Amino acid sequence: MILDKIQKENDIKELKKEELPQLAEEIRTFLIEKISENGGHLGSNLGVVELTMALHLSFTLPQDKIIWDVGHQSYTHKLLTGRREGFETLRKYGGMSGFPKRKESNCDAFDTGHSSTSISAGLGYAMARDLRGGDNYVVSVIGDGALTGGMAWEAMNNAARLDSNFIIVLNDNNMSISENVGGLSNYLNMVRTKEGYLNLKAGVESTLLKIPVYGDQIVKRVRRTKNGLKQFLVPGMLFEEMGLTYLGPVDGHNIDLLVKTFREAKNVKGAVLLHVCTQKGQGYEPAMRHPARFHGAEPFVIETGLPKKKRVKANYTDVFSTVMRKMGDREPDVVAITAAMPDGTGLKRFRNMFPDRFFDVGIAEQHAVTFAAGLAAAGLKPVVAIYSSFLQRAYDQVLHDVCIQNLHVVFAIDRAGLVGSDGETHQGIFDLSYLSSIPNMCVMAPKNKWELSDMMKFAVAYDGPIAVRYPRGEAYDGLERFREPMEYGKSEVIYDESEIALLAVGSMVKTAVEVREKLRVMGYGCTLVNARFVKPLDEELIRRLQAEHRLLVTMEENVKRGGFGEAVLEYLNEIGSKVRSINISLPDDYVEHGNVEILKADAGIDAETIVKRIVAEYIGL
Amino acid sequence: MILDKIQKENDIKELKKEELPQLAEEIRTFLIEKISENGGHLGSNLGVVELTMALHLSFTLPQDKIIWDVGHQSYTHKLLTGRREGFETLRKYGGMSGFPKRKESNCDAFDTGHSSTSISAGLGYAMARDLRGGDNYVVSVIGDGALTGGMAWEAMNNAARLDSNFIIVLNDNNMSISENVGGLSNYLNMVRTKEGYLNLKAGVESTLLKIPVYGDQIVKRVRRTKNGLKQFLVPGMLFEEMGLTYLGPVDGHNIDLLVKTFREAKNVKGAVLLHVCTQKGQGYEPAMRHPARFHGAEPFVIETGLPKKKRVKANYTDVFSTVMRKMGDREPDVVAITAAMPDGTGLKRFRNMFPDRFFDVGIAEQHAVTFAAGLAAAGLKPVVAIYSSFLQRAYDQVLHDVCIQNLHVVFAIDRAGLVGSDGETHQGIFDLSYLSSIPNMCVMAPKNKWELSDMMKFAVAYDGPIAVRYPRGEAYDGLERFREPMEYGKSEVIYDESEIALLAVGSMVKTAVEVREKLRVMGYGCTLVNARFVKPLDEELIRRLQAEHRLLVTMEENVKRGGFGEAVLEYLNEIGSKVRSINISLPDDYVEHGNVEILKADAGIDAETIVKRIVAEYIGL
Repeated sequence: MILDKIQKENDIKELKKEELPQLAEEIRTFLIEKISENGGHLGSNLGVVELTMALHLSFTLPQDKIIWDVGHQSYTHKLLTGRREGFETLRKYGGMSGFPKRKESNCDAFDTGHSSTSISAGLGYAMARDLRGGDNYVVSVIGDGALTGGMAWEAMNNAARLDSNFIIVLNDNNMSISENVGGLSNYLNMVRTKEGYLNLKAGVESTLLKIPVYGDQIVKRVRRTKNGLKQFLVPGMLFEEMGLTYLGPVDGHNIDLLVKTFREAKNVKGAVLLHVCTQKGQGYEPAMRHPARFHGAEPFVIETGLPKKKRVKANYTDVFSTVMRKMGDREPDVVAITAAMPDGTGLKRFRNMFPDRFFDVGIAEQHAVTFAAGLAAAGLKPVVAIYSSFLQRAYDQVLHDVCIQNLHVVFAIDRAGLVGSDGETHQGIFDLSYLSSIPNMCVMAPKNKWELSDMMKFAVAYDGPIAVRYPRGEAYDGLERFREPMEYGKSEVIYDESEIALLAVGSMVKTAVEVREKLRVMGYGCTLVNARFVKPLDEELIRRLQAEHRLLVTMEENVKRGGFGEAVLEYLNEIGSKVRSINISLPDDYVEHGNVEILKADAGIDAETIVKRIVAEYIGL
Repeated sequence: MILDKIQKENDIKELKKEELPQLAEEIRTFLIEKISENGGHLGSNLGVVELTMALHLSFTLPQDKIIWDVGHQSYTHKLLTGRREGFETLRKYGGMSGFPKRKESNCDAFDTGHSSTSISAGLGYAMARDLRGGDNYVVSVIGDGALTGGMAWEAMNNAARLDSNFIIVLNDNNMSISENVGGLSNYLNMVRTKEGYLNLKAGVESTLLKIPVYGDQIVKRVRRTKNGLKQFLVPGMLFEEMGLTYLGPVDGHNIDLLVKTFREAKNVKGAVLLHVCTQKGQGYEPAMRHPARFHGAEPFVIETGLPKKKRVKANYTDVFSTVMRKMGDREPDVVAITAAMPDGTGLKRFRNMFPDRFFDVGIAEQHAVTFAAGLAAAGLKPVVAIYSSFLQRAYDQVLHDVCIQNLHVVFAIDRAGLVGSDGETHQGIFDLSYLSSIPNMCVMAPKNKWELSDMMKFAVAYDGPIAVRYPRGEAYDGLERFREPMEYGKSEVIYDESEIALLAVGSMVKTAVEVREKLRVMGYGCTLVNARFVKPLDEELIRRLQAEHRLLVTMEENVKRGGFGEAVLEYLNEIGSKVRSINISLPDDYVEHGNVEILKADAGIDAETIVKRIVAEYIGL
């Protein structure tokens, strides 16, 4: 195997040119095998095999810096920097991350996970090099989907002015996770199309050559302006107009051509954008046919591309999907917004049934939220579905555009709590804190699948900013018979006993059921309350609980600082309560990738640890 | 006076054409008078007098929707919608806001304050109209500075695709608050310049006309592509390439021309960008000469343009400015970043002394933070100076790009706490909450001007993400003799007594001094601690304080939820403390504009109210 010759970075440079196509082949086979076993990002990685090889042939790591936007497409980069073994533990607890990590390798220049950050970070590296008189290259690799994110625009605007040598590789596969949308996407489509710019360029050039006298006049006139002739001869004018030098488009699966173009890019003064066209899933038919499914894939059968495990139970996403479809029918004012996640959020069915009332704004969480605020100001009922960790990017828009005006925008926040194998950047463990800090915001979390449905209906019927946060994966289907009607700011008492009161948020109600079972076996009386509302607090109930119990335990899948538990403690202090409390929440730390159950135990929010803490505390009372 | 004829919206339409120039004149005189008395945004408002009049002549309020980006330029709009009286109380407690407010008038379509939101909100209005079959117009007025904000790009990208009738007015004055920067700014400069595009357009057209045969061939070829000939004949290609229709540039002080162009814009299908060139401060010489000073002006003498009050004491901004200048000298690795605020943040002096190490990235807080992360990853020591309320927009970048990697980025957060007359959108009362929720983040606040200086030095010498937050305005110069060396995570005990312990953050130390005076007069013993660190907590000291006092009072100028007080309560609960606590902080609400002292009393965080609460609580113990 050629792949065996790659033990560390820059080893690829020792290969013979003829060996490269075989290496690409081997890498693809390797990736498909490993990901089919363990799951992971497939399509994006298959798309950049040649591009990554060309980068490693053209640049020298770790001196040169390659920054992978989003970062889930860095598998080939990991292979080429000596991390082949890591794929045995890819995205597993304690194993190799599915994203670039500086602590994993000095060839990973910058940690990524969320979209559209790479140009900013790369520009930082480039300016630092200039200030220190270095001569290394800096390359940011960004997808066309990520380019719709506003901060990429902010960074390009800055790069154009700073005039530092800096290479931006636009990895254009015409996809975010699902199909790409927006004006930029249309534009790139046009550039890619042979009938479009490429012909134009050749055509205009040859036409101009035929008319020496007048053609010359035009050229002179056009050249008088700063950007000169290229404005009408070169594709990628959009980028040229911004002040970047544009090269391309280049076939992203042609290593030779890529290497040549990188050589050219190195010689450009200032910031250069190199437009590379790739095919997501290249070399594996099912991934090319179903890009969304093979974006972040579960383990699958290579021959068929079908998932190994059949899902039996519904996910929270499915429940959301169903309730949105039904509400779409009943409520003509309900509209739905996603930021490039029609599949992931479950809004695809809504889109199919109500295409006019569905908006995919691209990877653009900030715009998504303020756009929703505009829709709400005009009297519609927008539901914005964004993952917990991505909504972080719209904190100001929620605070400033939605909540100051008290607008009725519904936030459906999927992937809230620990998400597992994507790790630190994707854990949805801050939303209770950042949302609760915002005045006028109402924050809810459902205990099980029926309650998600009830809460969505409640949220749409409400009038004001309101969020429903629910976890990734299988929906809890216990406690079916507990389905008290939703009432604003009111928690649901599931079991009313004495001694110990468990006050649990969302996913932690399931854990609280287990905790209660164990405590009862040990002879303790145990009240179980489903908080339902994280904000506002059900103060009346908390007042009663503290009076009627000796120990109050709050439980949430969120960091402690600014979370539900602290708010309860603050209320207990306000009323001068003397009850003892335990705040079960995540520590003030990032949580790495791994199986969610292991991560929970690790963080001490599993039933067993909680029971131990409760018993220890209770005995001391 | 013509202005007397304007009693409500649309009254301007009844005026004779000849009266309009005089009205413009009267409005300018009115604005200069009122703002010279009360302070307010002057330059931006003088710049859009004719533009606003033309909008009101061309559209019908409140059916048609005008959304003012940022919103501080809406004074003429307020005048033309019957709010002349309001200028007597402009930006005063209980008076008229300096920004658009839906609750103030139904002619204010959307509340604004932060930059770059108007296209998103306007697009929401436009889509809602389409869904409901309405026929009103929607106009978003955005400055060229605001256009560098990423969410404007996200919104333009979306607008291009949605194909809804929608007018974007680009109010191009070549300024944010200070000079504009970045590739976009260069681009717009070129478009504005007569020697640039306008000549090119005429030139190329006439040249083409001279060459019937070959010219015709070129035209045909060029037309074959989607955007056709206009790509090289029309200025504003950047926007055309994005998928918007571009009109302009138009002289923004020519009402006739503006009205004609709005008529044209109304007939364009889809989203149209109308490029209007205005002059900030138009009609008032001092404001044209000193745009930054007259952006948000203090009361001034009309004849000279000089401030009425001479500042005696230094502002915190001045202190920051000085320490940065000194550190720039001593520490060659220190670089400074601002998002369009070289004046406001006090970084101008640093820029003048170390131009290579200073970066103004434009109104682009997200990019500012991740760019800093890149600089830090490369080994430099970036100081990012952003106002508290604007840093909200970079919450995800702080969390995801700086803190996960534990990068040494220093955040200098000015305007933290209540800011006064700018009101709800600008109060810096959430930063302790949103920053504290982020793992690895260290958060500090200085008690007085010397401590700001010490903290900045400490922060630069530290290694990791660290924030120093300080208030708007005059720096406290009391407690000079208390200047214990800074130690990580350690608070400063100023007076050590018994009974009551005051644990105050930043600006509240000054208030705590007053509280302590009053309590001592009443015979209470009172310890006073300057918290210094909001995160991490000085747990050792808190443990001692709770053991040695009967009442512990935390004090902060931040909302309660997620703030310092809650964190202290959580720690007290963790150690099973029985001490009584009072959490002095801002309620879970937005705070409107007005004098800061009034606002503090209103919120119950003034010395008098605090003393009352303490005494009431203490007597009950």
